[in-house]
Amino acid sequence: MIIVMHPEATSEEVAQIVERLQDLGADIHITTDGGRTVVSGTTESRLAEEAPWTDLPGVERVVPMVRGGRRVGRHFKSEDTVVQTMGVRIGDGSLTVAAGPCAIESREQMLETARLVVTAGAKMIRGDAFKPRTSPYAFQGLGKAGLEILAEVREETGRPVVAEVLDPREVELVGSYADVLRIGTRNMSNQALLREVGRQSKPVMLKRGRASTIEEWIDAAEYIHNEGNPHIVMVERGIRGFDPSARNTLDISAVPLVKLATHLPVMVDPSHAAGRRDLVASLARAAVAAGADGVMIDVHPRPEEAMVDGPQALLPDEFEMLMRDLEAVASALTSPRASNGQP
Amino acid sequence: MIIVMHPEATSEEVAQIVERLQDLGADIHITTDGGRTVVSGTTESRLAEEAPWTDLPGVERVVPMVRGGRRVGRHFKSEDTVVQTMGVRIGDGSLTVAAGPCAIESREQMLETARLVVTAGAKMIRGDAFKPRTSPYAFQGLGKAGLEILAEVREETGRPVVAEVLDPREVELVGSYADVLRIGTRNMSNQALLREVGRQSKPVMLKRGRASTIEEWIDAAEYIHNEGNPHIVMVERGIRGFDPSARNTLDISAVPLVKLATHLPVMVDPSHAAGRRDLVASLARAAVAAGADGVMIDVHPRPEEAMVDGPQALLPDEFEMLMRDLEAVASALTSPRASNGQP
Amino acid sequence: MIIVMHPEATSEEVAQIVERLQDLGADIHITTDGGRTVVSGTTESRLAEEAPWTDLPGVERVVPMVRGGRRVGRHFKSEDTVVQTMGVRIGDGSLTVAAGPCAIESREQMLETARLVVTAGAKMIRGDAFKPRTSPYAFQGLGKAGLEILAEVREETGRPVVAEVLDPREVELVGSYADVLRIGTRNMSNQALLREVGRQSKPVMLKRGRASTIEEWIDAAEYIHNEGNPHIVMVERGIRGFDPSARNTLDISAVPLVKLATHLPVMVDPSHAAGRRDLVASLARAAVAAGADGVMIDVHPRPEEAMVDGPQALLPDEFEMLMRDLEAVASALTSPRASNGQP
Amino acid sequence: MIIVMHPEATSEEVAQIVERLQDLGADIHITTDGGRTVVSGTTESRLAEEAPWTDLPGVERVVPMVRGGRRVGRHFKSEDTVVQTMGVRIGDGSLTVAAGPCAIESREQMLETARLVVTAGAKMIRGDAFKPRTSPYAFQGLGKAGLEILAEVREETGRPVVAEVLDPREVELVGSYADVLRIGTRNMSNQALLREVGRQSKPVMLKRGRASTIEEWIDAAEYIHNEGNPHIVMVERGIRGFDPSARNTLDISAVPLVKLATHLPVMVDPSHAAGRRDLVASLARAAVAAGADGVMIDVHPRPEEAMVDGPQALLPDEFEMLMRDLEAVASALTSPRASNGQP
Repeated sequence: MIIVMHPEATSEEVAQIVERLQDLGADIHITTDGGRTVVSGTTESRLAEEAPWTDLPGVERVVPMVRGGRRVGRHFKSEDTVVQTMGVRIGDGSLTVAAGPCAIESREQMLETARLVVTAGAKMIRGDAFKPRTSPYAFQGLGKAGLEILAEVREETGRPVVAEVLDPREVELVGSYADVLRIGTRNMSNQALLREVGRQSKPVMLKRGRASTIEEWIDAAEYIHNEGNPHIVMVERGIRGFDPSARNTLDISAVPLVKLATHLPVMVDPSHAAGRRDLVASLARAAVAAGADGVMIDVHPRPEEAMVDGPQALLPDEFEMLMRDLEAVASALTSPRASNGQP
Repeated sequence: MIIVMHPEATSEEVAQIVERLQDLGADIHITTDGGRTVVSGTTESRLAEEAPWTDLPGVERVVPMVRGGRRVGRHFKSEDTVVQTMGVRIGDGSLTVAAGPCAIESREQMLETARLVVTAGAKMIRGDAFKPRTSPYAFQGLGKAGLEILAEVREETGRPVVAEVLDPREVELVGSYADVLRIGTRNMSNQALLREVGRQSKPVMLKRGRASTIEEWIDAAEYIHNEGNPHIVMVERGIRGFDPSARNTLDISAVPLVKLATHLPVMVDPSHAAGRRDLVASLARAAVAAGADGVMIDVHPRPEEAMVDGPQALLPDEFEMLMRDLEAVASALTSPRASNGQP
Repeated sequence: MIIVMHPEATSEEVAQIVERLQDLGADIHITTDGGRTVVSGTTESRLAEEAPWTDLPGVERVVPMVRGGRRVGRHFKSEDTVVQTMGVRIGDGSLTVAAGPCAIESREQMLETARLVVTAGAKMIRGDAFKPRTSPYAFQGLGKAGLEILAEVREETGRPVVAEVLDPREVELVGSYADVLRIGTRNMSNQALLREVGRQSKPVMLKRGRASTIEEWIDAAEYIHNEGNPHIVMVERGIRGFDPSARNTLDISAVPLVKLATHLPVMVDPSHAAGRRDLVASLARAAVAAGADGVMIDVHPRPEEAMVDGPQALLPDEFEMLMRDLEAVASALTSPRASNGQP
Repeated sequence: MIIVMHPEATSEEVAQIVERLQDLGADIHITTDGGRTVVSGTTESRLAEEAPWTDLPGVERVVPMVRGGRRVGRHFKSEDTVVQTMGVRIGDGSLTVAAGPCAIESREQMLETARLVVTAGAKMIRGDAFKPRTSPYAFQGLGKAGLEILAEVREETGRPVVAEVLDPREVELVGSYADVLRIGTRNMSNQALLREVGRQSKPVMLKRGRASTIEEWIDAAEYIHNEGNPHIVMVERGIRGFDPSARNTLDISAVPLVKLATHLPVMVDPSHAAGRRDLVASLARAAVAAGADGVMIDVHPRPEEAMVDGPQALLPDEFEMLMRDLEAVASALTSPRASNGQP
């Protein structure tokens, strides 16, 4: 349940609310939004929901812990969240491109690709050390050795690096190397993992589950926020559909839908959505035009040698051309979200 | 089966091929592409497919009547088809916006809306006289009276009008008023109707079936082309998905996929895809950025009074703002399709 | 709108209602259900819905023309509809198996198969003269010649024959040969065709659209019933899904769902659902156990020679074995629907 | 890669193969099937796949580590796997019903329900202590206290108990109370968890991911088997679809498909598939008729008080009636799988 205080509520009035919630055994978060203090109390006691909160002095309104009451929701905080790391700001109206190989295969491959994409304009570098593969016999990533390569890449390029985390027991390890933790599509409903990244202070990119509704995806973000980590970027990466033409169906509507329902930034991964190189540029341009805060692109200097997802990786020159197009689209639209008619 | 002749094939050599196909009872089309004569022969005789065509003089290669052999396919004709009506050209790299109410409700509503959208920049006007409704008890359109209103709209604005046709027995009637015939999503697999519009000479907009694969949609276009009408515009309008947030899932990948597989122009209908006004602008911008040749937008001066699909209609001022954005995106991308890396 | 009269309403009271509806231009149907007279009036006038019907003498309740008010709905008629033709009764608790080849290919193939399936216990024979094929270049059926073969099959076996109808202009032709008209999955939303079969007096099998919800499918049945033909059998045949293992996903829940929502009989076509022979027996047994009134099975004496859908056709001995299993399951369940806890 | 030896291969010949695989760093499993020794070697070295194994003495054939080469596959072992616990045998042709409440709410509720379902014929008891809920604010289960109740239930009834496990760090804890570990639909692709249950010796019920293909599901089972635990039961529980009538679409084809592709037993959970009580009986009967080795049914003495999924729980008398029906169907079909025409 979320209790929004009057703008003029006194600190004593806020304290009284907090005390009551503590008596009910609630887990309490306090934040402010537009000059109002907002107290959020999580408890399984039905008493909390039923208590006559609105009768207490200083309370403006009470939002039950239902859909509208999520901490990641627009109702909870109307300003956009800006997620920051090493000077990169996602969600402030600028365009962020994260690029790199799907998997870290070697020091040389990773460094070569990182230099290429940074030169072309990428602000952030991707590359995974742990890969969740459908078959147990497929290449599963270099593990800790890959993370060390990633750290070297950050050192050399000065750009933040993003890496996937698969296991709650490895969150600290990955977090000690990567600047942004990524939850992949297979683990969007892995709540033990969501809770664990929720206890970190690093930004988290939360990919949408392959067959998750927008609501379920936002609920997954709430698991992270509820543990104390509000630095969440939502990443649309295509959903399961019936058409075999592309690997997944990029749900472009997810961009405005998440923007309407939450205050979180949204990125799009057209590479994993398409699964084939010849669609990536169209989908990336569409994502930026739809209002996404950024895109994440697979790039590989020699895709035919890639150990994972080579057919979807752009070649370096294709990536450069795409960067120019994306910047052109972003400039053409001074305020993409506003033109949705939203405040 | 499609027989591609050598660039230097003589007319006698072509005549010999044609004669053989006639002997086999084939229905024959002849066209040229890049200096080559292309003979397409449709017959159910297996003999045709099995005949030793490549042994005949002047034959460069033979494409069996399978996927790659469709007349709407890129393999059959590599240049883009440009569909024209009353000076509007769809598929030549320009942006075509068709707009208007979902259904024609009255002369006043239709004329008012038509003037509005033309002033804002729409090149084409939509408005249906026959509506295919899920329930037999829902408003089914004004019928012939609606068509007469449509003719008046064209007269006054000088712009071509688009209207849906539902029944093979009504194709001539609708065609005698409308400039472009539209096949709706419910009828994409209604082959009697496809054949009937294939016998007309007017352009046809073919909406994708709500749960059709790209391949099935292209095959439906082939039914039209095969009857002799090559003036086909493919219209993506959202596919059936599992997420109730929007009415359909706009499959933005359809834009590059159809462009890669066929020579036909592609438009997008974000209004019917979304089913809700607050997503339309994002999706329309995305469509243009993805490389669509146009979009089709529901506009209603008073959506709350609309008899069909009011919640998805833009208000006039929202439409004006969108037109400015779409033109900005289109200008930013000088050659959207080319940046897919396609010739 | 449906007006349910009191059990004791007089005929004068009923006449008064009918007169009022006639004044409003409504199309009127009168039926009785459990001793009550039920008057159904279809009109596009909003006045009809808004008139103070419940104030009139003899009226028990008024059901607006929404979901609950469909003529095919349980609310309209609580007893099960039994569809009859040539002594076969579908919907009376017995099991009806319709079997035969997907398409009529020749007189010999059709007669041979018909004899085989009748000997094994099939009550009804299937075989199509008009085939709706995804590609215009695929075999489209023998047409009228096929219908003549079908008539001969009926003559010889004494069993009713089922055939698909594709075009509103061919409904009379097909109906002059076939005992049951079938609307295929591609045409479930082809409302011109639905209306045309609704004007016939022969039973109609209405296949579910490949991606139609249960509600949309029931609305399609309402189009038929609304024209005056209540002899409708609903046929589940698999829906579009994401798994390529089978051609479609058989939605077994459709059986109880349609039984709960309507008074119509339900059959299942496991052959077209699966698209592969090795799943057909399992799915057919499941259909009967779920409470279906019948199944429709593709059988071909030489599937490897079949012109359409050979891979899903059972061999004659597989069909015999299946018939024994289906009868065993049907006998084990004396009242499959009742065990749903329904009256 | 799997190396199948000749039936007459000597132990020296087998030893030679093993030695070579060891040299290549492979992880080795040896089993026998139909008198043949089968050596399975897992390694990321491409050398292993490329080595000339078939030239070595005693080798009959080599199956690369692709689809056909999975340890859970029929090609690896043609006899059906029978999973056993406390005298219950799943996969031997008998019918196993597991029943109980969705969540353990209290000692009284759990014991009362367990007694009811055992009296009615259930061989196994379900009841979860850890619940994966879409929202972090929903009831998440009683945790360790719930497990203690479960142990008491087993003590009193003498029947094995099944419980879900959510976190790799809790596998040992849950396994110290429950007889069968269950992986839920949200965690089917949680490979850290799959590996952890793969290191246990207890049976594992692996629910299909809500939007997983049959192939992906079988690959998830392979993760478990590959760690050394072959005691796996596949549980179909409905997949994501577009129809809101039921919570999920029960994919009844999954039963024969998994039987054809693997040697593992298959159960069906109609309660979670339907999400509504009035469909459960139909779907459960269908599952048994399709050839499932068992079903898992939610039962609650007072569903209106249930903390999780009350609307889908059967009442005790509905469950008794269903048990009689299921036994009747199972008896009617002496050999459901054989009638698929499979050996």
